[in-house]
Amino acid sequence: MVDAVGVSLLGAGNVGGGVITALAGARERHAGHVGRALELRFALVRDANRDREGIPRDRLTTDIEAILSDPQTQIVVELMGGEQPAFDYITRALTSGRHVVTANKEVMAKRGAELLSTAAAHGVRLLYEASVGGGIPIISPLSRDLLANEITSVTAIINGTTNYMLTAMSKQGADYSEVLAEAQRLGYAEPDPTADVDGIDAAYKLAILCGLAFHVEVLPEDVTRQGISRLTARDILYASELGYTIKLLATGRLVDGELVATVAPTLVASGEPLAKVDGVLNAIQIEADLVGRVVFEGPGAGSAPTASAVLADVLDVARDLVAGRVERPEPARRRVRVRPPEEHRSRFYIRVTVADQAGVLARIAGALGEHEVSIASMIQFEADADERTAELVFTTHLAGGGALSTAIEQIGSMDVVREVGAVLPMTGLGAR
Amino acid sequence: MVDAVGVSLLGAGNVGGGVITALAGARERHAGHVGRALELRFALVRDANRDREGIPRDRLTTDIEAILSDPQTQIVVELMGGEQPAFDYITRALTSGRHVVTANKEVMAKRGAELLSTAAAHGVRLLYEASVGGGIPIISPLSRDLLANEITSVTAIINGTTNYMLTAMSKQGADYSEVLAEAQRLGYAEPDPTADVDGIDAAYKLAILCGLAFHVEVLPEDVTRQGISRLTARDILYASELGYTIKLLATGRLVDGELVATVAPTLVASGEPLAKVDGVLNAIQIEADLVGRVVFEGPGAGSAPTASAVLADVLDVARDLVAGRVERPEPARRRVRVRPPEEHRSRFYIRVTVADQAGVLARIAGALGEHEVSIASMIQFEADADERTAELVFTTHLAGGGALSTAIEQIGSMDVVREVGAVLPMTGLGAR
Repeated sequence: MVDAVGVSLLGAGNVGGGVITALAGARERHAGHVGRALELRFALVRDANRDREGIPRDRLTTDIEAILSDPQTQIVVELMGGEQPAFDYITRALTSGRHVVTANKEVMAKRGAELLSTAAAHGVRLLYEASVGGGIPIISPLSRDLLANEITSVTAIINGTTNYMLTAMSKQGADYSEVLAEAQRLGYAEPDPTADVDGIDAAYKLAILCGLAFHVEVLPEDVTRQGISRLTARDILYASELGYTIKLLATGRLVDGELVATVAPTLVASGEPLAKVDGVLNAIQIEADLVGRVVFEGPGAGSAPTASAVLADVLDVARDLVAGRVERPEPARRRVRVRPPEEHRSRFYIRVTVADQAGVLARIAGALGEHEVSIASMIQFEADADERTAELVFTTHLAGGGALSTAIEQIGSMDVVREVGAVLPMTGLGAR
Repeated sequence: MVDAVGVSLLGAGNVGGGVITALAGARERHAGHVGRALELRFALVRDANRDREGIPRDRLTTDIEAILSDPQTQIVVELMGGEQPAFDYITRALTSGRHVVTANKEVMAKRGAELLSTAAAHGVRLLYEASVGGGIPIISPLSRDLLANEITSVTAIINGTTNYMLTAMSKQGADYSEVLAEAQRLGYAEPDPTADVDGIDAAYKLAILCGLAFHVEVLPEDVTRQGISRLTARDILYASELGYTIKLLATGRLVDGELVATVAPTLVASGEPLAKVDGVLNAIQIEADLVGRVVFEGPGAGSAPTASAVLADVLDVARDLVAGRVERPEPARRRVRVRPPEEHRSRFYIRVTVADQAGVLARIAGALGEHEVSIASMIQFEADADERTAELVFTTHLAGGGALSTAIEQIGSMDVVREVGAVLPMTGLGAR
């Protein structure tokens, strides 16, 4: 057998362990697919004195130089996460002529353009299938299989933690803090859940998807973001009574050549495919001129599914190495204007807690009408007798984000209004 | 601009028209992705005197030689369908050094191995994303994105015509012949619907999927096949009362190194993702060791979706041509034993029409028990008073196909049994 293809890992935690196990368990099968064996060379870890399953102690290193100076390492797999030092290490691996496979959504969302151009300049590949949607093939289908299309929208559930929590809130009628505690106990949520519940993780992934889908330059800060922490069990119940399921939806569209990208808890009509995606599952829906609508669904996280995506990229690079193929340029990306939230258009769900007295509804409806926000439906829910308050839920027809927030501000300042509890977008034709 | 990449079509019908329209409409965008324009060279048609939208009359030809002798045709797109003359034309295109993209499931299912080895021998590519699932990316994800996995099952709805019909039977309570007539009127079913309703089309596609998923040699005749024409509205109703939806399911598994491949109307538990795939939609569910379960859903047919898949392959080849990349070998396939239906194991749904008299149930249950087919549930539906018959529906626990058919034969020959109306597999753990 000719020389093996050498693979070194940066990071040997949960996903790294999955990659090591999968490489060891399928050694011959992978060798059959590639034409050469894959050989695990080194793993960069924080503590080289702690044993790791499936990798000899003398292959653990705390020094990136050990990997960058190893002539047999042809592919570097970055699994550390975070922007730094991942960005520096990937850059150095690429400039030293190594192909890089990464699962790191943060560094790809923030610095992907630089990294991809470094890769191109050095004639090596940078692949990142595992950065979005865990084991679901989505980067490669967008890059290749849907390339003939003009993609019009990306709509995705790409954060398993929050989807687990929203599903639990919906099925159990439980409140946010209860399900967060449960998710933390089960290991689905981090001790500090901010990145998940504030939509930061989803915004990274959406930025990556929009870049690929629309061939535009996009950064995480281009994504308008609303988290789930203010949602109540009542919002989920009311949405359900209106025929909707609340999902933390990541949505990207190109409207008149401008990018609209949002992550927000969104009312999804119960008949739509994404409304049925429950628990830690992820799903990505693509709408495009030729194909119409396709949906990709599967496990968005976890050690083995992420290893599936990482190793797909590793095998792809390895097969190219064996065949002697050269890299081909990626489609160019252009910079487009990003629409601020005031210019978004959507239907909205609005929940307002008001004093239980006559004339309140008329005043709120008046404020909406004044700003040309047209009401599609209104429900008054039973009052809280002790507090002497009532809860009003409005859904609107398509409205501009700017007009809506002016109206909401006006409503929030009314003496009869105790609280504007939720303002959430709704899916529906014409949103943009 | 350097020379364009020349593309010629074999066939300019429905899909060909879609390809021509998409090429024309996205000329600059595609050129941007590829680095060179795609130029439509010739289209092989039956009648070169009939005008076609989007292609000048002098580019229509009835002679394959005009294309094979055109030095500027680098990619041949075969859209004729059927085994012959498609097989000969593809072979000649490959041996003349052209890359070939085909949407032809029949020729790929029956002769794919030969064609792929001809392509390899001549250093050219043969791509066939459009042969299964229309616009849904599935060939490329199986070939690349899931390659690190050991795939354990493929479960798919890959015939839009029958899925449309079964959905209509389910929603309208209509009978087979009514919905067939409606599907024919709407253009979803052919005047001769045999290939669809007998599962022949699905068997071609399943053979292609199994070959890729399991890295085995498989032919359409290796697929055990049952069509939908004997299904009644009552079966769909009874299944629904049991908590199932009937779908024409194409299922492939590798069990102890042996292939089990079936196309049959199957009771799918209503909670499963495939139970919710309605109308002309297709969906393919893959289960694998690393990724767990992923589902790909979208339009399985139609001019524009199929053009999306065809053009994904064309752009892929064109980008390689521009980059000067060489082909890499495909993973090898091995020949495995194909399990005959007697050796399949499944749960089953059985509907029997019997004389409405005492002791019948005991005799049928006895026949099943004698052959070790264990009953999971039984319902006796209201008798037909005029005919003095009753309808019994059994579901079984896991049972061997051989034992079941012996029992069914015995039941069918009982004097009290008017008809064994349906014997259908059910999804469920342990089927193989």
